[in-house]
Amino acid sequence: MSPPSDTWIIAAQCPSRLGTVDVVTRFLKESRCYITEQHSFDDRLGERFFIRAEFRPLDDDFDDEAFRAAFAPRAEEFDMTFELTPPGTRMPVVILVSKADHCLNDLLYRYRIGQLPIEIRAVVSNHPDLEPLAAWHDLPYYHFPITPDTKAEQEARVWGVIEETGAELVILARYMQVLSSEMCAKLAGRAINIHHSLLPGFKGAKPYHQAYDKGVKLVGATAHYINDDLDEGPIITQGVEPVSHADYPEDLVAKGRDIECLTLARAVGYHLERRVFLHAKRTVVFAK
Amino acid sequence: MSPPSDTWIIAAQCPSRLGTVDVVTRFLKESRCYITEQHSFDDRLGERFFIRAEFRPLDDDFDDEAFRAAFAPRAEEFDMTFELTPPGTRMPVVILVSKADHCLNDLLYRYRIGQLPIEIRAVVSNHPDLEPLAAWHDLPYYHFPITPDTKAEQEARVWGVIEETGAELVILARYMQVLSSEMCAKLAGRAINIHHSLLPGFKGAKPYHQAYDKGVKLVGATAHYINDDLDEGPIITQGVEPVSHADYPEDLVAKGRDIECLTLARAVGYHLERRVFLHAKRTVVFAK
Amino acid sequence: MSPPSDTWIIAAQCPSRLGTVDVVTRFLKESRCYITEQHSFDDRLGERFFIRAEFRPLDDDFDDEAFRAAFAPRAEEFDMTFELTPPGTRMPVVILVSKADHCLNDLLYRYRIGQLPIEIRAVVSNHPDLEPLAAWHDLPYYHFPITPDTKAEQEARVWGVIEETGAELVILARYMQVLSSEMCAKLAGRAINIHHSLLPGFKGAKPYHQAYDKGVKLVGATAHYINDDLDEGPIITQGVEPVSHADYPEDLVAKGRDIECLTLARAVGYHLERRVFLHAKRTVVFAK
Amino acid sequence: MSPPSDTWIIAAQCPSRLGTVDVVTRFLKESRCYITEQHSFDDRLGERFFIRAEFRPLDDDFDDEAFRAAFAPRAEEFDMTFELTPPGTRMPVVILVSKADHCLNDLLYRYRIGQLPIEIRAVVSNHPDLEPLAAWHDLPYYHFPITPDTKAEQEARVWGVIEETGAELVILARYMQVLSSEMCAKLAGRAINIHHSLLPGFKGAKPYHQAYDKGVKLVGATAHYINDDLDEGPIITQGVEPVSHADYPEDLVAKGRDIECLTLARAVGYHLERRVFLHAKRTVVFAK
Repeated sequence: MSPPSDTWIIAAQCPSRLGTVDVVTRFLKESRCYITEQHSFDDRLGERFFIRAEFRPLDDDFDDEAFRAAFAPRAEEFDMTFELTPPGTRMPVVILVSKADHCLNDLLYRYRIGQLPIEIRAVVSNHPDLEPLAAWHDLPYYHFPITPDTKAEQEARVWGVIEETGAELVILARYMQVLSSEMCAKLAGRAINIHHSLLPGFKGAKPYHQAYDKGVKLVGATAHYINDDLDEGPIITQGVEPVSHADYPEDLVAKGRDIECLTLARAVGYHLERRVFLHAKRTVVFAK
Repeated sequence: MSPPSDTWIIAAQCPSRLGTVDVVTRFLKESRCYITEQHSFDDRLGERFFIRAEFRPLDDDFDDEAFRAAFAPRAEEFDMTFELTPPGTRMPVVILVSKADHCLNDLLYRYRIGQLPIEIRAVVSNHPDLEPLAAWHDLPYYHFPITPDTKAEQEARVWGVIEETGAELVILARYMQVLSSEMCAKLAGRAINIHHSLLPGFKGAKPYHQAYDKGVKLVGATAHYINDDLDEGPIITQGVEPVSHADYPEDLVAKGRDIECLTLARAVGYHLERRVFLHAKRTVVFAK
Repeated sequence: MSPPSDTWIIAAQCPSRLGTVDVVTRFLKESRCYITEQHSFDDRLGERFFIRAEFRPLDDDFDDEAFRAAFAPRAEEFDMTFELTPPGTRMPVVILVSKADHCLNDLLYRYRIGQLPIEIRAVVSNHPDLEPLAAWHDLPYYHFPITPDTKAEQEARVWGVIEETGAELVILARYMQVLSSEMCAKLAGRAINIHHSLLPGFKGAKPYHQAYDKGVKLVGATAHYINDDLDEGPIITQGVEPVSHADYPEDLVAKGRDIECLTLARAVGYHLERRVFLHAKRTVVFAK
Repeated sequence: MSPPSDTWIIAAQCPSRLGTVDVVTRFLKESRCYITEQHSFDDRLGERFFIRAEFRPLDDDFDDEAFRAAFAPRAEEFDMTFELTPPGTRMPVVILVSKADHCLNDLLYRYRIGQLPIEIRAVVSNHPDLEPLAAWHDLPYYHFPITPDTKAEQEARVWGVIEETGAELVILARYMQVLSSEMCAKLAGRAINIHHSLLPGFKGAKPYHQAYDKGVKLVGATAHYINDDLDEGPIITQGVEPVSHADYPEDLVAKGRDIECLTLARAVGYHLERRVFLHAKRTVVFAK
């Protein structure tokens, strides 16, 4: 759910220190910005401060460039990084897929009805299968096949699309390829993967088969930022679903689809609304 | 979960207006109070502002009386009511029960292990049954029987205990009596009831039997502040549990016990941590 | 999830009486049918017996007509109605919609990937909006506008499509029209509606707005068979989702979409797998 | 929830073969036993059949010894093991604890109100702390301290209590000791442990601290039969609870208590109602 059309977001983080809230909220007040929702958290173990505010400028001639320029020196004093997001911002996105289409289908639906404020610049896949689905939504589709020999080259082509389209977020919607460390580094904090299990429970391939073998009574999904430590990226959100002895591996796969879609869409929504803060290997998520 | 032992809480509300966050956060900064968690919300339909901050005074000689005195005029300017809660505060509580003991048992356990920062001053009942349970926890137990003729008188005795013990919170842990409008008014905002259904689904008596008759597939419980509109008090939190055709009314009652305990305890915890704000007929709850 | 491709289903019900299980299971054994999953329940308040078995004929020349003919007299002895469903059965379906497309989109996706064993014969709407979505799935779309004056006539046209297509199941996927008693009677037990609230909580129109006004902390959806007592049809399954004070009515609507889709799809799946038994105003659901 | 007071349970398992259902249900019918609820499942990967039926003998002079004797040869023909449980059976139980009392407190409450049909013969601990709680429920408490040197000897004393009391079920209610392989073998299928994490996610010690370090957004608990492969025993049921960045390890521990209590109690309830079947490393659970 995106904030009302007149609402800006400021999101910031910095080392813990007296005055971290005040430096933000005072400036907003001085700038005649009315705060409609605000959340801050100080991680006492990590000694790190996080703040997010939604606000509505009271004056019609609110000038965000001036705002940024005036706030920058104050932020700097606190070693604070900040991001200002105007209302109606639609983040440019590239979606990576393989053959499974449930997450893509779900994202495209939310995109189509305007629930996710994104602008999908491209769908990229190592398989041709999902082209018709992209085409129906009038989206460019790039089919870059991959073989053991062409892995680096294929990744370069994927990166090319990300760069050329100006994508700020990459969504791995069941893209079944492992990215190189370099690619992970370039996409740090802006690539969200859905892992089809409750990490760290079942890492690696075929987690639903692993789950069946263990006889678990719950299956789940994990949405996380990618990093070069495979299946260990910072977790954004997780979902879960009860299962029974009567669910064979293929049933777990089917049941898992729903929870994968919901979990990925929720993570993307949080990211778009600047509710997720990444620091070290953990996230702070100011959910509604 | 109570905040760490050095953490204070300030909770405030007032009409919506520019500067409502700033008046609180600036004062905290000026008072050298470090904010560890903070949440504010502006209800745009109700035009009402709510804020809650946990903070740690950086100076050893923090003087809360001086803090209150100095902040009061600033708050007044905004028509703001506020409450300052010191670390380690244990709220004086009276618990009302009838015969069912599951919620009482649950609350006493959480009290005993220190999970709920309360000081139980008395357990009051219209039946004698739960005295041994109270006694094992070294708690005074008042048995005030009730008949149609003695209703007003009995309520007066209950009120007497509340007054004499200085209870700031009254928990109706399955107290099966309807309170008078006067009593409700006197306890406004400081008496929490657990209704054994998902309000407004099944108001009134025997909700689980009503649920069975309707063939519902979910049962639930609602924790709410009492008011004189029976079963319509402002909702704090709700819980739910799946059920099936094989659950007869007595099974629903049994399944309901767990969800009633959990829901009531969660509501009480939110109240104690000053996470609940009451305004008109709705609540704002800053859950963790 | 449909049973494996060699698996038949028998579903039956009758008044409670000694031998109700035996008459089914003995016949299956005598017919050399191997039972892979079986569930029976005797409703002691309603004095009614329900049974469902999945089985695999051991002989290649299994003749279902012969099976039916031979079992019929035994069933009759118990006043038992039964239904035999061959593997791979795809139920003919008509879907009714208005303007909201989330449930339709979700059903069409599950249909497309074969998760729901249905054959969609038509999509019918009182609005033209969802035609492109139906068209992309190569489905006939009937736009039958409705006005207060043409209500009966429009319903007759809808009924015409149901009859002509041979639909065995009608799914009201957010069809915002009230059906006449006659139509309800004709569709008894084979029309599933999704009500966008946790019945009987918020009957009627705009349930999310009602929910907001009450300040509830949970919203839900109810899938039920329609009957002529509006919003009171026998419940098949219900879903629920936590919400907060920060969710305005439009947020509740958005959050509700997911739970509506999931709840409706689950109900349809149960119906297709013959897991739902309807008796009087309640259902028996043998979920996996 | 225990079945009504006139209801017997038969639970059986055997290799997959035609007639496995019939051999049970036909005998029940011939014995004039009315089946009120019945569930069977054939594990096609494990080629194993499981059945459970609740039934009510229609004749007052039902003789269970005669029933057993007459059914035994039929069962034998199918290599079927079976167990017949009379109404009102209360299983003799020994509970093992260490210092944490939440699961014990929860079990004792359910025991006291008759929700769990057990007869607690003893509470055994390696610490003296929980004796008063046991004493209040009039239960014998054995304090058997343990040191690295006395591990075998202490276990022998625990075993002594189990044997002498005739316990048929041992509940490890946060008993923080690893049992020897011999002890595990002796308790196979009749000792239920609660592991305070969602296995196989965080095996071993301090799972909540592990969970915090990973930044997970869900914590859970797993109830399982013990076996000599530590933390890998067959899972009976699992529970889960959402958490956030604001939950420090001690908060996770506190939040975990509720889900541990509920999960353990549910597993014990399933076991008592003979809903759990153990085969190889997995369970079949016929939940209501």
